[in-house]
Amino acid sequence: MTEQQFLLALNGLRNDRQHGASALARQALLILQRSAEQATDCDEASLRLLMGQRCTQLCQIRPSMAVINGLLARWQQAVDHFHDEEGSLSTAMADQAGQLIDLSLQAVIDSARHASQLVQPGQTLITHSCSSTMMVMFEQLQDQNLAVIVTESRPLNEGVAVAHQLRRWGMDVTLITDAQMGLFAARADLAMVGADSLLADGSVVNKAGTSLLALAANYCQCPFYVLAESYKRTADLPEQLILEQMSGDELQHDFPADKTSNIYFDVTAASLISGWIDEHGVSYDGELK
Amino acid sequence: MTEQQFLLALNGLRNDRQHGASALARQALLILQRSAEQATDCDEASLRLLMGQRCTQLCQIRPSMAVINGLLARWQQAVDHFHDEEGSLSTAMADQAGQLIDLSLQAVIDSARHASQLVQPGQTLITHSCSSTMMVMFEQLQDQNLAVIVTESRPLNEGVAVAHQLRRWGMDVTLITDAQMGLFAARADLAMVGADSLLADGSVVNKAGTSLLALAANYCQCPFYVLAESYKRTADLPEQLILEQMSGDELQHDFPADKTSNIYFDVTAASLISGWIDEHGVSYDGELK
Repeated sequence: MTEQQFLLALNGLRNDRQHGASALARQALLILQRSAEQATDCDEASLRLLMGQRCTQLCQIRPSMAVINGLLARWQQAVDHFHDEEGSLSTAMADQAGQLIDLSLQAVIDSARHASQLVQPGQTLITHSCSSTMMVMFEQLQDQNLAVIVTESRPLNEGVAVAHQLRRWGMDVTLITDAQMGLFAARADLAMVGADSLLADGSVVNKAGTSLLALAANYCQCPFYVLAESYKRTADLPEQLILEQMSGDELQHDFPADKTSNIYFDVTAASLISGWIDEHGVSYDGELK
Repeated sequence: MTEQQFLLALNGLRNDRQHGASALARQALLILQRSAEQATDCDEASLRLLMGQRCTQLCQIRPSMAVINGLLARWQQAVDHFHDEEGSLSTAMADQAGQLIDLSLQAVIDSARHASQLVQPGQTLITHSCSSTMMVMFEQLQDQNLAVIVTESRPLNEGVAVAHQLRRWGMDVTLITDAQMGLFAARADLAMVGADSLLADGSVVNKAGTSLLALAANYCQCPFYVLAESYKRTADLPEQLILEQMSGDELQHDFPADKTSNIYFDVTAASLISGWIDEHGVSYDGELK
């Protein structure tokens, strides 16, 4: 992977508004894997320098997505202990990235399986934004006669793609504006969302609007679950967070972009969350395992 | 006003998504005024029949907007007691409509004045959707160095026009998606919205998303005020309400319109409201005067 190719891939990650944090973390690992695979002619020192720099750059790209930093830090830590035996370091680095991708995928599958056990056939579920882990759960729940209320998820409306996919899986989908979450939380049996990061105090960083769904669900006593594999945990607290702000132009209004706010994430307090679901099961006490 | 002209005007009211209930009620009265003015050649019986029918049709057009029914019912009640002295009934009917328009406008002005006294210079206010009464208040607050957070107000984004007008009045406006209300309620000194109807239990019918703003404001202890003249009061309770549902096409997504929900209003419970402002002043106890 040349420097030019790497920068192009990095830019793709920076501008990706369709995928959730977990999918983007695996893409970041894939970029490291490709970088290592194609760096077989480097000596050890330049290989470590190149890969370390790329890892750092990937870590900085989406600061609200703890899972990217978390998995890349695990990769860095592992490869720091590798020895370069007869030029095998690049292969070992690539393998390590591949193993972490597999680990993340398995955690997603296991988390989704635990989540799917919370949903009864014929129930109505409300969700917000798009989470790859949520989509794996929905795929496992095909033919369960589910009704799903899906928010459009402004500004880029990734909820519309979710709604289409759920319809293909035979679910009874209702697409709503984000503003109708209050009306529809009252009609749902449960609310469930993915997460970009799980903070140390049990609060959750996810697409802007998630905290509104949590408030609305709590208000009408609809349980509110967060589905996120443990790799999304961070030691950060809400006050240490950097919430990504994108260009105001994404709202596509005839209004000055610098007077238009487009903060992508909000924080939902642990007190509003009924249960946290990860690859180990469901936790109900706000104490992340 | 011929039948054809009346039906055109009626349709205009039906499809108007830019104006609030109070402005539409005055438009309905104006239609009655014009109808009466131009019916001078009717005998009393046909005049009463024609005007009664038009009044009924106007009442049915926007069922979530109590102020339309309220003011038209007052008009009907008054003209039922009028006598047709030498063919003066049509003029008296037109005058009555004009008087009710003036009464409504004065109530708006007085309500806005009371509301403006709650806002201190330099404060930050968050609002949702467009209310003509709110706009009168904002006009009174020019040069008060206000910062105003305005939601786009999906699906038709009437908040964008509000944002433009407030900027013309020299305010520091931030336009946000409805989904960012949770983030921005925490940055506001107060939240204030108009209303389409005030229900008997103190709860408020307003544009979908209002209940989310109220929940978010309550959560971060930001006071949440409702500004609406007393003509918007109805004896209805939330369970008697018909919440208008418009076409799913208004969301403009590539998704089946019949699987897209576009309910225009939601109900905000009295327990979430810090104060009700009308032409008589501010009430803090949820007991409408």
